[in-house]
Amino acid sequence: MTQINQNFLELQGSYLFSEIAKRRTKFMHENPDADIISLGIGDVTRGLPDAVMTAMHAAVDELAQPRTFRGYGPEQGYDFLLQAIVEHDYKARGIDIATNEVFVSDGSKCDVGNIQEIFSQDAVIAVQDPVYPVYVDTNVMAGRSGKFNSETNQYENIVYLRCDASNDFKPSLPDRKVDLIYLCYPNNPTGMTLTKGELKAWVDYAKENGCIILFDSAYEAFITEADVPRSIYEIEGAHEVAIEFRSFSKTAGFTGVRCAYTVVPRALKAKDASGNEVTVADLWNRRHTTKFNGVSYVTQRGAAAIYSPEGKRQITELVDYYMTNAGIIRDGLKSLGLQVYGGVNAPYIWLKTPSGLDSWSFFDKLLGEANIVGTPGVGFGQAGQGYFRLTAFGSRENTEKAVERITKLSL
Amino acid sequence: MTQINQNFLELQGSYLFSEIAKRRTKFMHENPDADIISLGIGDVTRGLPDAVMTAMHAAVDELAQPRTFRGYGPEQGYDFLLQAIVEHDYKARGIDIATNEVFVSDGSKCDVGNIQEIFSQDAVIAVQDPVYPVYVDTNVMAGRSGKFNSETNQYENIVYLRCDASNDFKPSLPDRKVDLIYLCYPNNPTGMTLTKGELKAWVDYAKENGCIILFDSAYEAFITEADVPRSIYEIEGAHEVAIEFRSFSKTAGFTGVRCAYTVVPRALKAKDASGNEVTVADLWNRRHTTKFNGVSYVTQRGAAAIYSPEGKRQITELVDYYMTNAGIIRDGLKSLGLQVYGGVNAPYIWLKTPSGLDSWSFFDKLLGEANIVGTPGVGFGQAGQGYFRLTAFGSRENTEKAVERITKLSL
Repeated sequence: MTQINQNFLELQGSYLFSEIAKRRTKFMHENPDADIISLGIGDVTRGLPDAVMTAMHAAVDELAQPRTFRGYGPEQGYDFLLQAIVEHDYKARGIDIATNEVFVSDGSKCDVGNIQEIFSQDAVIAVQDPVYPVYVDTNVMAGRSGKFNSETNQYENIVYLRCDASNDFKPSLPDRKVDLIYLCYPNNPTGMTLTKGELKAWVDYAKENGCIILFDSAYEAFITEADVPRSIYEIEGAHEVAIEFRSFSKTAGFTGVRCAYTVVPRALKAKDASGNEVTVADLWNRRHTTKFNGVSYVTQRGAAAIYSPEGKRQITELVDYYMTNAGIIRDGLKSLGLQVYGGVNAPYIWLKTPSGLDSWSFFDKLLGEANIVGTPGVGFGQAGQGYFRLTAFGSRENTEKAVERITKLSL
Repeated sequence: MTQINQNFLELQGSYLFSEIAKRRTKFMHENPDADIISLGIGDVTRGLPDAVMTAMHAAVDELAQPRTFRGYGPEQGYDFLLQAIVEHDYKARGIDIATNEVFVSDGSKCDVGNIQEIFSQDAVIAVQDPVYPVYVDTNVMAGRSGKFNSETNQYENIVYLRCDASNDFKPSLPDRKVDLIYLCYPNNPTGMTLTKGELKAWVDYAKENGCIILFDSAYEAFITEADVPRSIYEIEGAHEVAIEFRSFSKTAGFTGVRCAYTVVPRALKAKDASGNEVTVADLWNRRHTTKFNGVSYVTQRGAAAIYSPEGKRQITELVDYYMTNAGIIRDGLKSLGLQVYGGVNAPYIWLKTPSGLDSWSFFDKLLGEANIVGTPGVGFGQAGQGYFRLTAFGSRENTEKAVERITKLSL
């Protein structure tokens, strides 16, 4: 009988969202008339911007005619999209990135999950705690995690960088040698950010210690403050140490349309077993072209449309809509005396649960007494215990209603 | 400095299509007025069927309104598409497959590339020679290939199953213990097929020897003969030994739209390191949900539309169009006394190069004397030396013109 990849057996159950669904279903069963508001999952709710819709319709029509039909495109993305990304997301901000350093994909989840493949089996990885689970799980599958310790809620070979109120959710530099550092800013789940100076300390550390930073910047569009870097490449030297992941999912309502991109600068080098330098972009290009066949042409035309003048205006409106929600949640909770984080440069609000409740007890209280579904912080890692995540992706009406209900709770 | 995945250095250059492009470009430069016809790359050229186009337009409109917007969908695919697949591709042919055994993805290239991840690092793989390069390259990246031998043109740890005219392109059973057997039928590049009885021998072998068959059935829609299985699950016992890959790319013109699916029956088991049975579908589900975020909703609506009555009729017309081309090429070459294979149940025509020419010499002759671009068989593996692939995906006009030009050659 064929043998499986034994590392899969080290994976822990994907417990968080199934447990949320279970508790929600039980509550609905017992309270069929309850008007439940979900501020739990990080998925958008508004429609696609008009400019995107128009471009996608036009692309569908192109594909329907033999004369304008397009089959396989370049795996890395069409030049019209690569050019728009480079021009608007980088050159316009004074950052030098070339089109052959950009790889369009069908989602950041795929890219942050697949990137580890091009590095050594023995690479030591560091993640923030709390953390987006995909960084960890994909390294478990690849055999880099070691055993799971159910007492610490951590894998033995993964370096966890604790982020909590005591360090303003800004992790300390690793206390031992690591190879790959996953940083997510603006952060999911905490909604917190680093300043340029703080991010520079990480870039400098990576240069000095020969590490690579995997910088997940999926929420970049939600940044409102000037000193928060929108790209890690704003930091001098980052081209030599960092890979950046960007997504159209939250910015442009693309969670169901699927488009993202990854930047691997040509200046980023790693070494082979003999110590020779290897250009990391060449490895990623080989992986991307061998295991992926490009993003839907219709989707790529939609993504390019967000860089048009109308597209930009509509995206700004969309982001403003969600960030107004974030402000409503943040201000509402603060007025109750709660400790609230995030929501200024990110669509996530992270709160310290009141009265010393643990994350799941607060989940039950919020569901039972206010009929609101959120996400227990401990679901993102041990350091999230005693915290709770709310998202700004609901409708205005539901967001206001949810805050009003929370205001009436005895906390 | 961070160390790379050393296995990537064992990959051979992706030589074939870049070398074709190079020779074509050189020829065009020297002969700017030449009217080149490409029957080389396996990409379709007709427009999307009307039913698909209509469904995609409707889906774009749905996404543009908050009331009907859809964000993240199930990673495995929407139920409307899973139901259609199960009903029309399996139940209608008397095959029992459940929706939780079907995993919709953005392409068969991704699925056949990723499937190896869920199996042991030590798994021995067998491939047909000639072969679709993705099967080999993804196992090289995973460290299963051993060294490349430039004299044999093969990797030392991969078992090659030779397919040539002497065995009617039907490989012998492996002569040593293997774990994973990649079979592609209807075959790319040879266009040849197995009968039900012949495929049964493989299923029986896999059962007796504890192997798993990875059955790439991307060209199933082009089958015209009754005794050729359209699914490996037509064979008794296949549910316990086979994973099947299907694609909408060639059937429905989806090479630029991106949709495929993989069937992993619940009855398929493998073992862990302790010898315990593991349900392979659970591993694939975990991989799929961890590293993938679902196919574009617009694409899935388009794919579902091909199962409507109009969709089915339009797909049949599309397939008939290409298969008429295949017949034109096949008959034309046969009338010249050439040894011609494929083209009956597949859109590929595989020919023995005349006059003992090697594959690349025939490429040069065809380009130079008839201005036709095809694909040298040796590009698919050593057993393809002295063979040549032409595809039926061109326009009728170009196909007829190409055959007329070949007829005038001195072969």
